[in-house]
Amino acid sequence: MIHFIAVTVEARTAPKREAILEATIQVLRERGLSGLKVEEVAKEAEVGKGTVYLYFQDKQDLLKALIEHRTLSFYRKVEEVVERQGSFAQRLGEFLRLRVSWVEEWRGLWAAVAREAQPENTQGWLRGLHQHLQDLLERLVESGQQRGEVRPELDVELTAATIAALACNPQLEFPREAYLNHLSEVLLKGVAL
Amino acid sequence: MIHFIAVTVEARTAPKREAILEATIQVLRERGLSGLKVEEVAKEAEVGKGTVYLYFQDKQDLLKALIEHRTLSFYRKVEEVVERQGSFAQRLGEFLRLRVSWVEEWRGLWAAVAREAQPENTQGWLRGLHQHLQDLLERLVESGQQRGEVRPELDVELTAATIAALACNPQLEFPREAYLNHLSEVLLKGVAL
Repeated sequence: MIHFIAVTVEARTAPKREAILEATIQVLRERGLSGLKVEEVAKEAEVGKGTVYLYFQDKQDLLKALIEHRTLSFYRKVEEVVERQGSFAQRLGEFLRLRVSWVEEWRGLWAAVAREAQPENTQGWLRGLHQHLQDLLERLVESGQQRGEVRPELDVELTAATIAALACNPQLEFPREAYLNHLSEVLLKGVAL
Repeated sequence: MIHFIAVTVEARTAPKREAILEATIQVLRERGLSGLKVEEVAKEAEVGKGTVYLYFQDKQDLLKALIEHRTLSFYRKVEEVVERQGSFAQRLGEFLRLRVSWVEEWRGLWAAVAREAQPENTQGWLRGLHQHLQDLLERLVESGQQRGEVRPELDVELTAATIAALACNPQLEFPREAYLNHLSEVLLKGVAL
């Protein structure tokens, strides 16, 4: 038992674990949720099926690890942007760039994968994860207000939620830079005359 | 063969077909995509399993019909709002209300269901559907510019795409009316001081 725990702890930091998670999202993108089999993940990661089970108990455990790994790594990037020196407008632009890449990476599969990963209390688990993003965006809005760049009368919590909500896959293709500039422009200045 | 086609055409307008589609989204919400079985749908719709197969060839056909039925019905409601007399601000507010309800109804499952429904060319099919929404929102933006309510220098296509992008599930719960008012406020006036 002690041996098993030791292997698991070591496994958490192993590069093979990352490779398996990377392979999982690749298989998900190509075959969708119903096409995700541990065999396929092992093949894509170029490891044996048994190696996958060394790191993850089952498919559900793998999906849960995938969501947490990817989501927390996205939040770390967002935190870095929020904590950076610079104007609110610059940091908002950087956040939107990260957000659009994140949405594209998952192509709408995130919530469905999350549900398979944690079927008992999906909403509660996701809310816990999402609260990190909300907190980071509240810090961004507050810092914008302190710098005199964001309207002081705006509610911090709801403004952070609005920025978080601007995140869906546009589905249609637009020139990337023009689209990102436009998102920033509209969020900063609005559309009204 | 002629008889079969006649049944299918009649089936398309039958209330039982609607009840089965309604039951499908119910089962999806409760059990997720992997828990969706035709037996469960039949039970929820209070029909026999054979009845489901009278209307839909298989699970994939059922999911495709579900996406098209729900999405086109959402677009019809959006069209009604866009075509309505009234200020741009009012119609934008109504659109956001429809959009947030739509997102809540699917809870992030839409894209995953679409992928199961049409695995060969998901992106192409979704783009075709989404183009309707884009067209409707372009009409809304244009009418706002004609009424002198929307900044004339804004690109119509990208502004419509930005409004469409403001659509993700906030995950966290906010008071509904305050949240909707805030989305409208930020889209209309922006956050910048």
